[in-house]
Amino acid sequence: MKAYRELDEKELLALKKDLDKQYEEAKAKGLKLDMSRGKASVAQLDMEMDFLGIIDSNSNIKTETGVDCRNYGLLDGIPEAKRLVADMIGVSEDMIIVFGNSSLNIMYDTVARCMLFGVLGSTPWCKLDKVKFLCPVPGYDRHFAITEQFGIEMINIPMTENGPDMDLVEKYVNEDPAVKGIWCVPKYSNPQGYTYSDETVRRFAALKPAAKDFRIFWDNAYAVHDLYEDKRDELLEIFAECEKNGNEDLVYEFCSTSKVTFPGSGISAIAASKANLDSIKSIMTIQTIGPDKLNQLRHVKYFKNIDGMKAHMRKHAAIMRPKFEAVLSVLEGELGGLGIGSWTTPKGGYFISFESMEGCAKTIVNMCKEAGVVMTGAGATYPYKADPRDSNIRIAPTFPSEEELAVATDLFVLCVKLASVEKLLASKTA
Amino acid sequence: MKAYRELDEKELLALKKDLDKQYEEAKAKGLKLDMSRGKASVAQLDMEMDFLGIIDSNSNIKTETGVDCRNYGLLDGIPEAKRLVADMIGVSEDMIIVFGNSSLNIMYDTVARCMLFGVLGSTPWCKLDKVKFLCPVPGYDRHFAITEQFGIEMINIPMTENGPDMDLVEKYVNEDPAVKGIWCVPKYSNPQGYTYSDETVRRFAALKPAAKDFRIFWDNAYAVHDLYEDKRDELLEIFAECEKNGNEDLVYEFCSTSKVTFPGSGISAIAASKANLDSIKSIMTIQTIGPDKLNQLRHVKYFKNIDGMKAHMRKHAAIMRPKFEAVLSVLEGELGGLGIGSWTTPKGGYFISFESMEGCAKTIVNMCKEAGVVMTGAGATYPYKADPRDSNIRIAPTFPSEEELAVATDLFVLCVKLASVEKLLASKTA
Repeated sequence: MKAYRELDEKELLALKKDLDKQYEEAKAKGLKLDMSRGKASVAQLDMEMDFLGIIDSNSNIKTETGVDCRNYGLLDGIPEAKRLVADMIGVSEDMIIVFGNSSLNIMYDTVARCMLFGVLGSTPWCKLDKVKFLCPVPGYDRHFAITEQFGIEMINIPMTENGPDMDLVEKYVNEDPAVKGIWCVPKYSNPQGYTYSDETVRRFAALKPAAKDFRIFWDNAYAVHDLYEDKRDELLEIFAECEKNGNEDLVYEFCSTSKVTFPGSGISAIAASKANLDSIKSIMTIQTIGPDKLNQLRHVKYFKNIDGMKAHMRKHAAIMRPKFEAVLSVLEGELGGLGIGSWTTPKGGYFISFESMEGCAKTIVNMCKEAGVVMTGAGATYPYKADPRDSNIRIAPTFPSEEELAVATDLFVLCVKLASVEKLLASKTA
Repeated sequence: MKAYRELDEKELLALKKDLDKQYEEAKAKGLKLDMSRGKASVAQLDMEMDFLGIIDSNSNIKTETGVDCRNYGLLDGIPEAKRLVADMIGVSEDMIIVFGNSSLNIMYDTVARCMLFGVLGSTPWCKLDKVKFLCPVPGYDRHFAITEQFGIEMINIPMTENGPDMDLVEKYVNEDPAVKGIWCVPKYSNPQGYTYSDETVRRFAALKPAAKDFRIFWDNAYAVHDLYEDKRDELLEIFAECEKNGNEDLVYEFCSTSKVTFPGSGISAIAASKANLDSIKSIMTIQTIGPDKLNQLRHVKYFKNIDGMKAHMRKHAAIMRPKFEAVLSVLEGELGGLGIGSWTTPKGGYFISFESMEGCAKTIVNMCKEAGVVMTGAGATYPYKADPRDSNIRIAPTFPSEEELAVATDLFVLCVKLASVEKLLASKTA
């Protein structure tokens, strides 16, 4: 394969003619495919239907401590669900509050609490002139949407294979008291699938924030979401590192079973220090009657313990792995050596991150859309939807069937080629 | 029976001696009973255990519109759950967003949204110097806790048998732009069990608030919670009345199945105008992945429709009615004619409201507690837990068994007598 950059104008024009033809043919197929969101496939959901009947009219509906899960009570979750969730992320169960079905909702509420009531006695953020968050990029669009809605200024921090650029993180956090938080997906990051290195975690745990109400929003969304048993990433547990630095209040950690059991009907949790949990509970006790304990009980009965959950995750991996490999294989086979794009090869999580030539991402995503394949919007992986290089595209291979995925990926690489050729031609004429 | 006020000091002393003896005997029993919260009894929960198996691994898990309830999607609830909830409160289903298991959580979030983002473009309440809420008293402690936590000033509005004193409500709402809301439990009010009259509802619907961001927080918690089939209260539907006045944006209505199915695992909803719903959804879409749709589906499959729900509520009533009647019978039999207390006789809801002699409520509740019967804290039915007459006590007869309830009520009337005698004696010596 010859790199596109080495082609002269005539060759590019010939190539474009051929690609245009292929694209018109693809459009004529009238596709309707979705590679936009990190959703579990129907096959994954069908595989776990026995979850639904795990509690029925004959079930014991009491917790191990004898509390009736049907009635009011237990604001912070049932003990056995705390243990299950704690084991997912490697912390002790007394650091856990178990919530309802949406960790996004916990994150939003956590920021909202900081806005309205401050952090452990600090000034409420809504009373401050300026609040800033660090946003490793590319990152998770729904994190950025939360901070944007609250009017929090977002600062891009480049991601590396080892996590965010920690020199920059340390500089901002340790020097600027307006910097109150950072969004992190530390394992199988969204969208790149990078896992923070031990050194990165240690540097996070050793931060000396200028703002005493600075918090790390540690969204451990993919803690047990390995694609491979033999080559999975290991994330250093951050609270243990924080403790070594007397920094145990620094982190809010989030996790959920949204991609373990059913996405719409999982359980979610926050892990935090005692001081942080006490503060959160003092507000929660006004906010809610507490989470759905029967659904927590369903999870406990279904998995028994973390080993049961891990065995279940291997079933998910068996369905997802071929999809990741199929996409990666097409990318390598069709784009390898062309110099018009690079991509990540995650060992877990829900996404592959693609970097096009600068200035091509929006065009590629639009082309896909016109031909009936919905990708995550270009720019979505950046705060304010503003990708400064217009190059990052998030590929979500899990929801389509394998057949659909093959068709969608073929179209995607075609659009990458076409947009790149057009870009190169435009630069030659310019 | 001679009224206590007509007894002379000697008679009172003799009475006290006898009551003291009874109280010591009661204490010696070592009771451990709870009449403090509006909780369903075990018998009520056992009666609906078949709810739990209503969806199992063989169930159709799609909505009537074909959406997979297991996966992400449908931020505002599944259509059939909207219809069920809409029928509970007599509004159209396009006015509904269905949430998770806690209507308290919706109310809290609704106030929080007003604090952070204002109402349909108004200044966020957190930016204002002063925000006030009207609080019909006695009322629901958890309402008052929300407004207290947000630093909202609460103004007492006396309740009558027809609802809040509407002259006062109109005066405050129509004249003071700092008044932004009012808490209402319009049917079988907490704790009195009063239902707002048609005139009261009409006057609410015709308010002309000085603040354009004023809202009525209409907590229709007991919409289908009638104790009697033949003599139930009917609440006029408020949105229809609002429309007649061009006031359709004035009301946020809340309801839930917390006391229909399992208290910890119900579904809840808000009803509001299109403008209000659109505004709420624009914020919700950032906040959450949406509610647990499978649990919504459970409710729909269990009840089929509103008739099924009403039939189910008759089963609850059959368990609750004897308890209400037992308490009322003891109150009448033991306290009737003594002039030391009055009480309400609700036709639905979860509470009986008791008015002791002025200055006796705290003493009575403490006496009960010392003898092993927990009542709702005296003062809890008022903002800031400050009952100016120290006379209101909320009786929650539903949770104890009938046997326990008999014991607890006997103790309660004993404590009422004893506290009243002591009060009368103190006034004679003073």
